[in-house]
Amino acid sequence: MSQQFRVWMQQKQDQCERALADFIPQASVVPGHLHEAMRYAALDGGKRVRPLLVYAAGQLFDAPQEALDRAAAAVEMIHAYSLVHDDMPCMDDDALRRGKPTVHVKYDEATALLVGDALQAQAFLVLSEGNASAETRLGLVRLLAHASGSVGMCGGQAIDLASVGLALTREQLEQMHRLKTGALLRASVLLGASCGKTLNPEETVALNTYAAAIGLAFQVVDDVLDATADSATLGKTAGKDAADNKPTYVSLLGLPASQELAQQLCREAHGALDSFGEKAQLLRDLADLIVQRQA
Amino acid sequence: MSQQFRVWMQQKQDQCERALADFIPQASVVPGHLHEAMRYAALDGGKRVRPLLVYAAGQLFDAPQEALDRAAAAVEMIHAYSLVHDDMPCMDDDALRRGKPTVHVKYDEATALLVGDALQAQAFLVLSEGNASAETRLGLVRLLAHASGSVGMCGGQAIDLASVGLALTREQLEQMHRLKTGALLRASVLLGASCGKTLNPEETVALNTYAAAIGLAFQVVDDVLDATADSATLGKTAGKDAADNKPTYVSLLGLPASQELAQQLCREAHGALDSFGEKAQLLRDLADLIVQRQA
Repeated sequence: MSQQFRVWMQQKQDQCERALADFIPQASVVPGHLHEAMRYAALDGGKRVRPLLVYAAGQLFDAPQEALDRAAAAVEMIHAYSLVHDDMPCMDDDALRRGKPTVHVKYDEATALLVGDALQAQAFLVLSEGNASAETRLGLVRLLAHASGSVGMCGGQAIDLASVGLALTREQLEQMHRLKTGALLRASVLLGASCGKTLNPEETVALNTYAAAIGLAFQVVDDVLDATADSATLGKTAGKDAADNKPTYVSLLGLPASQELAQQLCREAHGALDSFGEKAQLLRDLADLIVQRQA
Repeated sequence: MSQQFRVWMQQKQDQCERALADFIPQASVVPGHLHEAMRYAALDGGKRVRPLLVYAAGQLFDAPQEALDRAAAAVEMIHAYSLVHDDMPCMDDDALRRGKPTVHVKYDEATALLVGDALQAQAFLVLSEGNASAETRLGLVRLLAHASGSVGMCGGQAIDLASVGLALTREQLEQMHRLKTGALLRASVLLGASCGKTLNPEETVALNTYAAAIGLAFQVVDDVLDATADSATLGKTAGKDAADNKPTYVSLLGLPASQELAQQLCREAHGALDSFGEKAQLLRDLADLIVQRQA
């Protein structure tokens, strides 16, 4: 990882943090308890991979930072709400997230449910406001709604739930992840790029290919880390997948083949960006980051 | 209730049902289990009060039916998702809704959580598409996101949760309901009207006054019915509020004063519509319906 990329990343993580802090109502706004819990769930945590993809893809087309801040905050609110709901006892029942107690542990289950619901609404509110043209903002809303709903993230979670204990084929596993985590990662890339311009078909195909590859790579690496890292490094409970008898790339392909698959997907992601030249360097660096991350 | 209004109401309830059936993916679309549960939650049930408000307010400004169908379906999806989440064990823990087993009883808790999440995303997707201008659609998204989020419906639910067992003042009770049920009812009126034209300040004030009055009346009547009707008539568990030690208008003002308050709010709602003349008759009839309903 280059020093320049490291600096850029820190800068954008800070920028996203400020955007989230601005776009989620303060705890002084009624109902204060809910807003405090929403801020607990979304602020000060995570690698902000999705916002980084938004900013990097936005840079490709010189998108205005104001629009990118909204897109980055919105996609991170969707991601944060999904974690809050995922961690609840009726789903993964996890007590630790990003090294902190999960929302239902810190507050209670009913609050966690409402925090997730309200973060989702807030994401669409943030996208619907701002300085971009009505067409642009509407396009962002549509992208995010599609990627986070029943044929995107929520759909992937439903398939995941239904798959526990089943022997999935590699295609079935891939389809689940394409929805569960892939859809939102892909949306992040398209959201960022769409803040800059209306994409032509070639650009859409190239960015979709890139996004599909890193989306899958992200999940393969997640499975590898769940099998190899410890909870302290991950900031969440390690070894959960095996304990929960969940199908993973590691259980399906084994560890070495999973690691090789991640590398191959990274090369695919790089290849998809060729036509963009130098301006896509941040997206290349992010693909590397996703595959090389340790947590 | 006039025969003409009764016919209109049945027509629009059917129209809303068809719109919901169209706008929620079929159970044949992957993931079928989730889509089936979403349809179970949203179709074939309820009085469709919010959609009726959308259609009635739309008629005021001759809004196109295509846009109204989207707005009606979207607001009903938000309402349906809130019921699914509300009924979960960590919230109201209710087994019966609209005379049918609640979603977490019929399926399971994890599915109920995802059904609610996915219905919310679908509501924003439906609003973001269609034939209305980008400005109009964006305005609808903003209205609905604001009304359903942390300073609207979700916020009201958070205040409600925090109020169990507390002695609320009438103002506090009113504020809670203004958010919990009032915000979405108000949004329904504004969504419908906004499908027809961009509202001027006088129209906005008049419709807001109408919507605030019927929103509050709706809740007062709800409290009255919870105290007086039986579960079979309500299609949900009666007497829950008292059993849960929840503050209600009946517990605060007593039954006769609550009934008189509902009547007074109905007169306020009528008064707010004076400037619209004959074209507002459907909204007047709906105010009467809300106050006179028996379930």
